[in-house]
Amino acid sequence: MDFLDEPFPDVGTYEDFHTIDWLREKSRDTDRHRKITSKSKESIWEFIKSLLDAWSGWVVMLLIGLLAGTLAGVIDLAVDWMTDLKEGVCLSAFWYSHEQCCWTSNETTFEDRDKCPLWQKWSELLVNQSEGASAYILNYLMYILWALLFAFLAVSLVRVFAPYACGSGIPEIKTILSGFIIRGYLGKWTLLIKTVTLVLVVSSGLSLGKEGPLVHVACCCGNFFSSLFSKYSKNEGKRREVLSAAAAAGVSVAFGAPIGGVLFSLEEVSYYFPLKTLWRSFFAALVAAFTLRSINPFGNSRLVLFYVEYHTPWRRKTTRLGKYPVLEVIVVTAITAIIAYPNPYTRQSTSELISELFNDCGALESSQLCDYINDPNMTRPVDDIPDRPAGVGVYTAMWQLALALIFKIVITIFTFGMKIPSGLFIPSMAVGAMAGRMVGIGVEQLAYHHHDWIIFRNWCRPGADCVTPGLYAMVGAAACLGGVTRMTVSLVVIMFELTGGLEYIVPLMAAAVTSKWVADAFGKEGIYEAHIHLNGYPFLDVKDEFTHRTLATDVMRPRRGEPPLSVLTQDSMTVEDVETLIKETDYNGFPVVVSRDSERLIGFAQRRELILAIKNARQRQEGIVSNSIMYFTEEPPELPANSPHPLKLRRILNLSPFTVTDHTPMETVVDIFRKLGLRQCLVTRSGRLLGIITKKDVLRHMAQMANQDPESIMFN
Amino acid sequence: MDFLDEPFPDVGTYEDFHTIDWLREKSRDTDRHRKITSKSKESIWEFIKSLLDAWSGWVVMLLIGLLAGTLAGVIDLAVDWMTDLKEGVCLSAFWYSHEQCCWTSNETTFEDRDKCPLWQKWSELLVNQSEGASAYILNYLMYILWALLFAFLAVSLVRVFAPYACGSGIPEIKTILSGFIIRGYLGKWTLLIKTVTLVLVVSSGLSLGKEGPLVHVACCCGNFFSSLFSKYSKNEGKRREVLSAAAAAGVSVAFGAPIGGVLFSLEEVSYYFPLKTLWRSFFAALVAAFTLRSINPFGNSRLVLFYVEYHTPWRRKTTRLGKYPVLEVIVVTAITAIIAYPNPYTRQSTSELISELFNDCGALESSQLCDYINDPNMTRPVDDIPDRPAGVGVYTAMWQLALALIFKIVITIFTFGMKIPSGLFIPSMAVGAMAGRMVGIGVEQLAYHHHDWIIFRNWCRPGADCVTPGLYAMVGAAACLGGVTRMTVSLVVIMFELTGGLEYIVPLMAAAVTSKWVADAFGKEGIYEAHIHLNGYPFLDVKDEFTHRTLATDVMRPRRGEPPLSVLTQDSMTVEDVETLIKETDYNGFPVVVSRDSERLIGFAQRRELILAIKNARQRQEGIVSNSIMYFTEEPPELPANSPHPLKLRRILNLSPFTVTDHTPMETVVDIFRKLGLRQCLVTRSGRLLGIITKKDVLRHMAQMANQDPESIMFN
Repeated sequence: MDFLDEPFPDVGTYEDFHTIDWLREKSRDTDRHRKITSKSKESIWEFIKSLLDAWSGWVVMLLIGLLAGTLAGVIDLAVDWMTDLKEGVCLSAFWYSHEQCCWTSNETTFEDRDKCPLWQKWSELLVNQSEGASAYILNYLMYILWALLFAFLAVSLVRVFAPYACGSGIPEIKTILSGFIIRGYLGKWTLLIKTVTLVLVVSSGLSLGKEGPLVHVACCCGNFFSSLFSKYSKNEGKRREVLSAAAAAGVSVAFGAPIGGVLFSLEEVSYYFPLKTLWRSFFAALVAAFTLRSINPFGNSRLVLFYVEYHTPWRRKTTRLGKYPVLEVIVVTAITAIIAYPNPYTRQSTSELISELFNDCGALESSQLCDYINDPNMTRPVDDIPDRPAGVGVYTAMWQLALALIFKIVITIFTFGMKIPSGLFIPSMAVGAMAGRMVGIGVEQLAYHHHDWIIFRNWCRPGADCVTPGLYAMVGAAACLGGVTRMTVSLVVIMFELTGGLEYIVPLMAAAVTSKWVADAFGKEGIYEAHIHLNGYPFLDVKDEFTHRTLATDVMRPRRGEPPLSVLTQDSMTVEDVETLIKETDYNGFPVVVSRDSERLIGFAQRRELILAIKNARQRQEGIVSNSIMYFTEEPPELPANSPHPLKLRRILNLSPFTVTDHTPMETVVDIFRKLGLRQCLVTRSGRLLGIITKKDVLRHMAQMANQDPESIMFN
Repeated sequence: MDFLDEPFPDVGTYEDFHTIDWLREKSRDTDRHRKITSKSKESIWEFIKSLLDAWSGWVVMLLIGLLAGTLAGVIDLAVDWMTDLKEGVCLSAFWYSHEQCCWTSNETTFEDRDKCPLWQKWSELLVNQSEGASAYILNYLMYILWALLFAFLAVSLVRVFAPYACGSGIPEIKTILSGFIIRGYLGKWTLLIKTVTLVLVVSSGLSLGKEGPLVHVACCCGNFFSSLFSKYSKNEGKRREVLSAAAAAGVSVAFGAPIGGVLFSLEEVSYYFPLKTLWRSFFAALVAAFTLRSINPFGNSRLVLFYVEYHTPWRRKTTRLGKYPVLEVIVVTAITAIIAYPNPYTRQSTSELISELFNDCGALESSQLCDYINDPNMTRPVDDIPDRPAGVGVYTAMWQLALALIFKIVITIFTFGMKIPSGLFIPSMAVGAMAGRMVGIGVEQLAYHHHDWIIFRNWCRPGADCVTPGLYAMVGAAACLGGVTRMTVSLVVIMFELTGGLEYIVPLMAAAVTSKWVADAFGKEGIYEAHIHLNGYPFLDVKDEFTHRTLATDVMRPRRGEPPLSVLTQDSMTVEDVETLIKETDYNGFPVVVSRDSERLIGFAQRRELILAIKNARQRQEGIVSNSIMYFTEEPPELPANSPHPLKLRRILNLSPFTVTDHTPMETVVDIFRKLGLRQCLVTRSGRLLGIITKKDVLRHMAQMANQDPESIMFN
C-alpha cells in the first residue's frame, strides 16, 4: 500500500532562486553510485554501463574542452575580421581580415607590411582618396557607423533573446557554484547569444574585454554537456563540479593559460573544489588550450588577459540612462568611437595596445614608443641597444598615452554595467600597463640623464641597458589586475603563462602581494564579491572571517516574542492541518517532533516534497482524505476504528537533520554552513527543539555584525 | 569562590600522539582575537600591540623564508664541497670545491676547464700519479672511504641526537598538518641534526634526494618561529597554518620553484588550507627563493627536483639488517660506492645526471650522449643541427645508462627507509629521465634511418630535427614522479619552473595525467598515503571517498552487548566517583547528561581538563573533599545541610558538543569529521544520547569497509 516507496516526479529538484543542500546532493550521488555498482555484477552489459558511468566525468571534460576551445577560436577570428571591417575591406575576399588580406597578396613588402593594394580603406573604396582631410573624415564616420551598428545589434539581441547574456557573468557563476539556482543562466540560448554578441561588442571597439564572458560561455558549454549525462543532470552538486572545471577551461582559452585557469577556478570562482575536480579541471583546461591553438595557430589570442571589473557598477546603477538600455549602449558607443579614433593608442584593439606596451624596443621595432635617438658612434650590435635619450616620438607617445589613460578609466566605468556582454580584465590591464609604461619611460630617462644618482649608480653604467620600460608595463598591469580582483597566485601564473617571462616572477609576485595589501586597506572585498553583495545573492564567502561573540541562540528563529516555530508532529496531524500550515507559511521545510509537548526532534521534512507527496497521495492512493492522519513513524499510529486511512510519509522525512545546541558560537555555525553547504540547521537544548537557523539568517546576521563593528575587519 | 574562572596551567594543550580539535582551536583563537581587539581601544600601547599581533603572521613568513633560504643555500654549498672531497682536494684552499678551485686559478683553459693544477686528485696528492691502474684503484678506495665516513657520521648523529631526523619527513608532516601531535618531530634538535646529516648523506653519494628532507627542515624553521609568537605557539590550529606555508617555502628552495611549492603544499601536504594561508605561503615561498638565489647565485640548485618514494619501504621493514641501522647504512653505502664509481652516470651527482639527460645536444656539448656523426657537407649553421646518425659514444652511453637504470632502481629501494635523512624525488626523477632519454635516442635513430615510415613522414624531413631526446627525458622524469606521488598540477608547475620550458607544457601535462591514470589503476594511494597507513597514523585523507551504506548507529560505541557508555551526570556525581571513572577508563572525554534515566545530553568534558580541574581544586579550593558533589549547571544543586562544599565545573564543559542522529549516513559523518576536523562526535536519537564516534572509530570503519569491498575503489 505504500506507494511512496516509488519515487514520484520532481523529488529532489529545487526551485529557482533557492539554495541547494550539498550534503543531500552528495548522499543522493552515493545512492546512485551504489545502485550502479550492485547492478554491475548482474550482467556484462550492466558492467559496461557502470564503466561508462565511471568514465563519463572525463568524457564531459573532453567535450567541454573541445567546444570551449572551438568557440574561443571562432570568436578570435570573427573579432579580427570585424574589427578591421570598421576601417576597410579586402577586395580579394571580403571575409579576410587586414592581415590575412595582405598575407595572401604578393605585393606586400617587409617594411610596409600593413599596406597592400588589395586592402582598401573605406575612403579609397568610396571616394578613391587615401589621404587628406575628407578621407580622414569619411573613415572616421564609417568607423563610428560600424561601431554603432555592432553595438545596436548586440544590445538588441541580448534584450530580446537572452537577458542573462549581459555583463561578465563571473559574479553569478560564483554564486551558482556556491549552490544557488538561477535557471536559464547557463542555458543554450545564453550560450548562443553571448557568443554572437561578444563578437559584436568587442568588434565595436567598446572598452571591455572578452575574458569574463568567455568564462561564462565555457560554463554554458559545461552545463550543456552535463545535461547529457544523468550522473550530472540529475544532481546539482555533481553538476557544479563540472562547472568548476568548465570555468578553468574558459580562463584557459581566454588567456592561453591552462594552469592559470585551474588556479583561477580554485582561488577565485569555486566553492567546493575537491582534488578530483582539480585533476579534471586540469584535463579540461589542457584540451581547451590545445583545441584553441589548433584553430588559431597564429595565436594573437596569446595576449588577451583576464577579466577585471572596476569598483563602479553600483554607481552606474542609479543613472537615468540605465532605464533605456539600448539608447545607453548607442550613446556610449558613439562617444567611445568619436574619442577613440583620433588617438592611436585607443583606436587599436586593447590587446594590441597591451602587447605594444609590454614589448621591449628591439632594433626592428617600428612603434612610436621606440623612437629613441641612436648614437651613430655606437659599436655594440643593434639588437643589444643600451639606454638612449628619448626622441620626439616618445614624447608624443607619452602625452597620447596620458590622454588614453584618462579616457580608458572614465569610459570603462561607463561601459561596464551596460546590458551587453562585457569583461573588465583587458581594460584594467590596459590601464595598469599604460601607467606602468609611462613610469618606466620616466625612470629610464631619469637614469640616462643622471647616471650618478645613488639609486642608479650601482647597476647603470653609461651605455648599458638598466631600465626596461616594458617590464614596468607588465608589473603595472599585474598590479592593477591584482588590486581589482585580489587574485595572487593565479594572477602571477597567468601573467607568466601569457608572457613566457619566467625570470620576471619575482617582480610580478611582489606586485601581486603589494597590490593586494594596498587594496585590502581600502576594503576586503574584491570586485566579484562586491558585485554579489550588490545583487543580494545569498553567497557565503569562504574568505570572510566571522569573529563575533554571538551564539546560535541569538540568531535562531523564532526570536523572543515571535510566535512559536511551525512544526509537524510525528503522528497526530491530519492532511488538512498540514495543507493549512503550508498555505499559511512560506518556509522551505518543517521540523518533525514527537509531540508538541515534548518537542523532541525526530527529523525534517522539505516543503516541496511535502506538497508533492500529498498531491501524489490524493491522486493515486485510495482512502486519503482531508482528515486522514499523516504519520512519519515506521508503524501507523493506533487510530479509532472508523477513522480514514492514514498517510505514511516516512520516505520524505530526513532522519538526520543537522542540529547544534543553543550555546554553539555563531563562529562555529558559520563554519558548518560554509564547509558542509547546509541550507538550514536546527537548534536544540538537551534534545529539545528550540528553533531554526537558515542560510539567509546567517548571512543577515553576518551583515549586521559587520555594520556594527567595521573596525574589526582589519584584524585578521 | 569560583577559582576556575581563572584559567589554570596546561588547559587547552594536548598530549603526545593525540589529535587536536580544529573547531576548538579556532574558537580559542577567536576569543584571543576579541580580547586583543577590545583591549586595543584602551591605550595607544595596546593598540600598537594589536597591530603587531595582526602583522605577526607576515613577520613569521618573512623569517621562515629567510632562514629556509639560507639553510638551503648553505646545504648546497657544503654538498658541492664534500662531494668533490671524495675525489680530491684544492691546494690553494681546502674548503674550495673543484669548480671554485679552478675558477680562482688563472691556468684554466676553456677546453679543459675541469683540469687545473691547483685541484689535485687523491692519487696525485698521495702517490703523485694521475693516470694508470694504481691511481685508479687509489682514487676508487678514497672515494669509498670518504663515502663510508660521511654515512657513518650521519647515521650516528641521527641515532644519538635526533631519531626523528631520519627519512624524508613528508608523510609525518602530512599527518601533523592533519591535526596529529608528534612532539619533538619539528624540534630544534631535529632541525640542527637533519641539516647537518643531510649534507653528509647527499655528499656520501647514496641514492637519495635532498628535497623531502628540505621540506622537513623548512617546517622545523616554521615551528621554531611560531614558538616565538604567542598567537601561534599557544594554538595548535594556527601553528599548522604556519607549517603549511613553511612546507611551501621548503619546496620553493628545494627546486627553485616558488609557485610549485605553494601548489605542492596545497595539493599534496596540507589538510586545512584557507585562502589566507595561500597568500602567506606565496609570500614565504617568494622570500625563500629570493634568499637562496642571493646566497648561491650560480644556482646549481636549479636542477634539483622533488622528493619521491618507491613502493617498497614496507618490504624493507622486514629485513634483518633493519635491526642494525648503523651496519645497514655502512653496507648500503659501501655497495653504492663500489658499484657507482666505475659508471660515469652513477658516479656524478644525481642532479648533474638529470641535467645532462635533459640537455639537448648543441654544437658545444661535450657529453658522450652527444657523440653524433656529423655530416661534413652540412650547410646549415652549427647550432641548428638536424638529425644525425649516432656515433660510438652514444652506443656506449646507451648500455651504461641501461646499467645505471637497473642499479638506481635496486639501490634506491634499499636506501629508502634507512635511518638517515633521505628523499626519493631526485632518484625517481633520474630513473624516469634515464628511461626517457633511452627511448628518445631510440626513436631518433629510428626516425633517421626510416624517414619514410608513416609516423615519421609528416614531420620529419631529411636533414631536419624532428626528435628531441632531451624532451623525452623530461617527460619521462615527470611521468615517473607523477606515478609515485600522484601529483598533477603542482608537478607540471614545478617541472616548468625548473626547466623554464613553457612550450613543453602540453607533453608534460599529458605525461602527468597519463601516469596518474596508470598508477591509479594499480591502487589509489600515493606514496605518502601508503607510508602514513604503514605507520598507522590516524590520518583522514581528503582524497578517499566513502561510499558505503552504513549508518552512524553501526559505527558508534558502545556496540550491542558492550557495557553502556561512561557518562557524567550534571549534578549528582561526587569527586571520588569521577576519579574512579577516570582511573578505570582511558577515554579522551565524557559526555555530560541531565541524569542517567533521561540521558539527555547537555555537554562534553575533556578527560585532560577534568583531571587538571580536580587537581587544581583539591590544591587551591577549600572544602573540596572526595565526596564533594561535582556540578556542571549554572547554579549549585540543592544539597543536604551538612554536605561538603560542591565543586563547580561549568567552565570546562563544552556546551556545544557535535551531535548527529543515529540514522545519519556514515558518508555524512566522514565528511563532517574531515571538513570540521573533529576529534569525536556524539550520537543521539530524539535528543537521547546513544553513543559516541571518535576519529579512530571512523578510520577503523573505513579500513574495514575498504577491505570488504576492494572493487568499489575503481568507481569514482
